[in-house]
Amino acid sequence: MTENTQVHRQCLACGFPFWEQLTAEEQDMLCRYTRPVKYQKGARVHSPTESCVGILLLRTGQLRAYLLSEDGRDITLYRLFGGEVCILSASCVMDAVNFDLYIDAEEDTEAYCISAGIFRRLMQQNVYVRCYAYQMTAERFSDTMWTMQQVLFMSVDRRLAIFLTDEIAKTGSEDVRLTHDQIARYMGSAREVVSRMLKYFAQEGWVKLYRGGVQVLDRKKLQEIARG
Amino acid sequence: MTENTQVHRQCLACGFPFWEQLTAEEQDMLCRYTRPVKYQKGARVHSPTESCVGILLLRTGQLRAYLLSEDGRDITLYRLFGGEVCILSASCVMDAVNFDLYIDAEEDTEAYCISAGIFRRLMQQNVYVRCYAYQMTAERFSDTMWTMQQVLFMSVDRRLAIFLTDEIAKTGSEDVRLTHDQIARYMGSAREVVSRMLKYFAQEGWVKLYRGGVQVLDRKKLQEIARG
Repeated sequence: MTENTQVHRQCLACGFPFWEQLTAEEQDMLCRYTRPVKYQKGARVHSPTESCVGILLLRTGQLRAYLLSEDGRDITLYRLFGGEVCILSASCVMDAVNFDLYIDAEEDTEAYCISAGIFRRLMQQNVYVRCYAYQMTAERFSDTMWTMQQVLFMSVDRRLAIFLTDEIAKTGSEDVRLTHDQIARYMGSAREVVSRMLKYFAQEGWVKLYRGGVQVLDRKKLQEIARG
Repeated sequence: MTENTQVHRQCLACGFPFWEQLTAEEQDMLCRYTRPVKYQKGARVHSPTESCVGILLLRTGQLRAYLLSEDGRDITLYRLFGGEVCILSASCVMDAVNFDLYIDAEEDTEAYCISAGIFRRLMQQNVYVRCYAYQMTAERFSDTMWTMQQVLFMSVDRRLAIFLTDEIAKTGSEDVRLTHDQIARYMGSAREVVSRMLKYFAQEGWVKLYRGGVQVLDRKKLQEIARG
């Protein structure tokens, strides 16, 4: 066993709760067919038309899963970070999962990739692996439904307030360095609608707009709007 | 064993693919805690605020799962018919599933109900039951995503509604005597996409499908969709 494989093995054992339920042969097989992959910021990881990548165990970086309309509008469904597992990049191996999802790298991203073919085999021969795959899918379902409810039902002001307070909580800075266009895409709204609402927020003195970003001035007020 | 329990047993064995993976004790437990339930047309089966019903194995009738906004707008996610299993009425037993879903009886409905408590226990002690529950959830995820894409991006349904209303206006008949393939070609879409959307229109009661054609039942509704 090479030193590299040894490292993989430890990561896989930590990353996948089904590891202990694998036979020694299955563990070896999993290690042998796992390879490190890198995606540059902006790279396409998965799309409905490309062949199936496999399962990704993220080490660093960030992935974004989204829907894309024919006219190019996109809606962010969820994001994945280091230590998390990207299951829907292997949706081809799950008969029960069948929809058009896109996944991009939002940051430079490093991951371990388990090929779709080998994962399919493990799923077939080990019910714990199968169970894990579907449970992870169900979790993404919950994330997605939450997003959908925001998109479908919530007023834009509330969604924008939630987005901004989430962002500053995540980064620890009052600065959200995103353009109106980027914010609109993350929120699944039209840019015009988001720009108008941002202008309104600025007029009220809750945020300050600058080229390429938004500075939050009144975090309390935004939290209040976010609560609805 | 009563005659009734005997009937339950047969239905459960047919309805649940994990039956063969249960121990004799687990099979007995499942039968003992399964009871027949009836819902009148229009009855609420599941809501985010009520306690968890359990798994339903539908015998006859129809259930509709939907999202509901604060201001009363609803969006149908999927429908279930006789022989199918309603898993999300037991979402409380799945830690990975957590969102606000409503389920109503759209017709008078008869089902076998397995209480949430007993299903939770079976899921904990038998990985095949757990796997089944999450796999069913993943299937509903696929249905839901399909619906969402239609609702969010409004392309195919609107185009199909426009096409059908144009046709009947042109011919003066409620009958559109074209195959799915022909309709798809006129619309410039894939046949599978058009077929699926026609099936959806039929389930909603807006059209009736017959060999070689489509009969429009609810012209007003189609005009409404066509207007967008």
